[in-house]
Amino acid sequence: MQAAAQAAAADGLDGLLVTPGPDLLWLTGYQPTAITERLTLLVLRDDADPQLVVPILELPDAESAAGAGAVTMRAWRDGTDPYAAAAPLLRAEGTYAISDSAWAMHLLGLQNQLPESRYMSVTQRLPMLRAVKDTKELARMEAAGAAADATFGEIVEVPFAGRKETDVAADLARLLREFGHEQVDFTVVGSGPNGANPHHEAGDRTILPGDMVVLDFGGLMYGYGSDTSRTVCVGEPTSQMREVHEIVRAAQQTAFEAVRPGIACQEIDRVARRVITEAGYGDQFIHRTGHGIGLTTHEPPYMVEGEERPVVPGMCFSIEPGIYLAGRFGVRIEDIVTVTEDRGRRLNNTDRGLTIVE
Amino acid sequence: MQAAAQAAAADGLDGLLVTPGPDLLWLTGYQPTAITERLTLLVLRDDADPQLVVPILELPDAESAAGAGAVTMRAWRDGTDPYAAAAPLLRAEGTYAISDSAWAMHLLGLQNQLPESRYMSVTQRLPMLRAVKDTKELARMEAAGAAADATFGEIVEVPFAGRKETDVAADLARLLREFGHEQVDFTVVGSGPNGANPHHEAGDRTILPGDMVVLDFGGLMYGYGSDTSRTVCVGEPTSQMREVHEIVRAAQQTAFEAVRPGIACQEIDRVARRVITEAGYGDQFIHRTGHGIGLTTHEPPYMVEGEERPVVPGMCFSIEPGIYLAGRFGVRIEDIVTVTEDRGRRLNNTDRGLTIVE
Repeated sequence: MQAAAQAAAADGLDGLLVTPGPDLLWLTGYQPTAITERLTLLVLRDDADPQLVVPILELPDAESAAGAGAVTMRAWRDGTDPYAAAAPLLRAEGTYAISDSAWAMHLLGLQNQLPESRYMSVTQRLPMLRAVKDTKELARMEAAGAAADATFGEIVEVPFAGRKETDVAADLARLLREFGHEQVDFTVVGSGPNGANPHHEAGDRTILPGDMVVLDFGGLMYGYGSDTSRTVCVGEPTSQMREVHEIVRAAQQTAFEAVRPGIACQEIDRVARRVITEAGYGDQFIHRTGHGIGLTTHEPPYMVEGEERPVVPGMCFSIEPGIYLAGRFGVRIEDIVTVTEDRGRRLNNTDRGLTIVE
Repeated sequence: MQAAAQAAAADGLDGLLVTPGPDLLWLTGYQPTAITERLTLLVLRDDADPQLVVPILELPDAESAAGAGAVTMRAWRDGTDPYAAAAPLLRAEGTYAISDSAWAMHLLGLQNQLPESRYMSVTQRLPMLRAVKDTKELARMEAAGAAADATFGEIVEVPFAGRKETDVAADLARLLREFGHEQVDFTVVGSGPNGANPHHEAGDRTILPGDMVVLDFGGLMYGYGSDTSRTVCVGEPTSQMREVHEIVRAAQQTAFEAVRPGIACQEIDRVARRVITEAGYGDQFIHRTGHGIGLTTHEPPYMVEGEERPVVPGMCFSIEPGIYLAGRFGVRIEDIVTVTEDRGRRLNNTDRGLTIVE
């Protein structure tokens, strides 16, 4: 908390305002049962001890959090104004970074109390707050990656043809849990034309022989995220399927090889995009190349055009180029990569060739 | 959507800005797989057709939503500025209501694009947007309530003494699913002193003979919420346990009997609080008397001091007074109540006396 407050001060901010979610968990170990309309707000300032504005009925839970000993609790009661309770902890004309996912209702409550105060999102001002993982965090990320890999190793042995996408998705969820995930967040099974929709989850479609199938799955293990994608073919692929798959594989490999401390995030995106564009599929690569991962599945750093910040050792992010041919099929290949002292290291290591399933 | 836009205009607003969550689901049937850092924003204006700013990779999902036919899609692509894409849909000096749980990051992005625009939360300006349930919604609320009641009917038959709170919580979750819930949201088992913490979930504590145990459980059935609490005693209660339980029961009953169209929400809170205060336990009733419920477990109307709006037919909310004796035990009794043409009607109907379990 002290380091975060200092980072905020060094960035010219009067403090950091943290609401329930990954930032609060990371800073204090406190995660309320539910994120609700009742204001919970951690105020971190360089010139004061941490203070937590908390609903009085959640005070016992907050006090049992790992970091509670370092925090002064400011409990408020239903029927009173929580923003009025928070206002004295802020400078009337201060500038604060606030958690990305803080509820708009709460931000508006603070703006209303302190009309001269200014706010920016954590991603805007302190995007790398949680981006560099320490060795304990990295160990968890590695375990999550290995469990996702073990899941892929098993899923290619299950029958695909004649089963519904949701059946295979259920297998993925079961395997992730068997290999140690405490939470399954997504199990994308995009067969045939459904694979051309990058955010398709899994539907009623029956998987057919000859289908390409995008598998993209992950969740949390020891609190940290996994996220990997492979695209498989049910039986023999066409030459176009092989060609498109190979382009994505080459893009993913080239981007991975570009990773080293100091390279700008957008450069990693550009490298992957260049391979796909030069092969003639640039318009079919409709998303960024990657996203950071840790306590959440999507977090800074983002591998996207416009993100000029460099990657540094300890960061973890996905490299996941894809090509999406509307009405036909999609291909995506994704690994989580961490940055070492001199290069990138993959936390997913299953075969990136085109695996044939039955 | 048209009615919502008209309600916003009638309230002097230039429009309604809706992000993923219950408001968007209710208005359009669209629920993205995950709520993320990528902006999805429905813009409702009285003088224009509904428009949805949506990440291009989620466009196929959005287009398959029930209400998509009435919505013009405005897809944006990674690496471009979604707030710049949204800005032309708004008046530069307009005033908008925005979903309570919209991410602060997104609100700040809009404020940055349109510095002269103003925002208020939906709860602040249009709190009753989803509060009145139509007959289809009421049927689902009733089904959810009946399933929760069936769960209570079974849970009082399981053994309590000698088992951990988490064991009984697992029974509650299993029963809720067996009786038709597709999602279990909370299974509070607060035994002995843990019952004095209203937001305690369930822990490692072994339940002992003589314990009071607060049970508070619910989830979603057909998309709509259940939420009921009863307090049971493991074996014979002390006279103080009986006394405190009876005070809470009387408070709950009195507040229920006060429900009729036109009564202010805060009056329902006052009625319950008066019974408990007159019995000498006012300081131990540390939360509001109730909250609205529907697509979410907590939503307006809130039965709390300061909420002067009246309840009207079709609203559904909890009445759940409690007394919390730190270090000893707690008592809470909760029903979901809907407002009819002339009174209240409970959606939970299990015994409100002090049930003895083993």
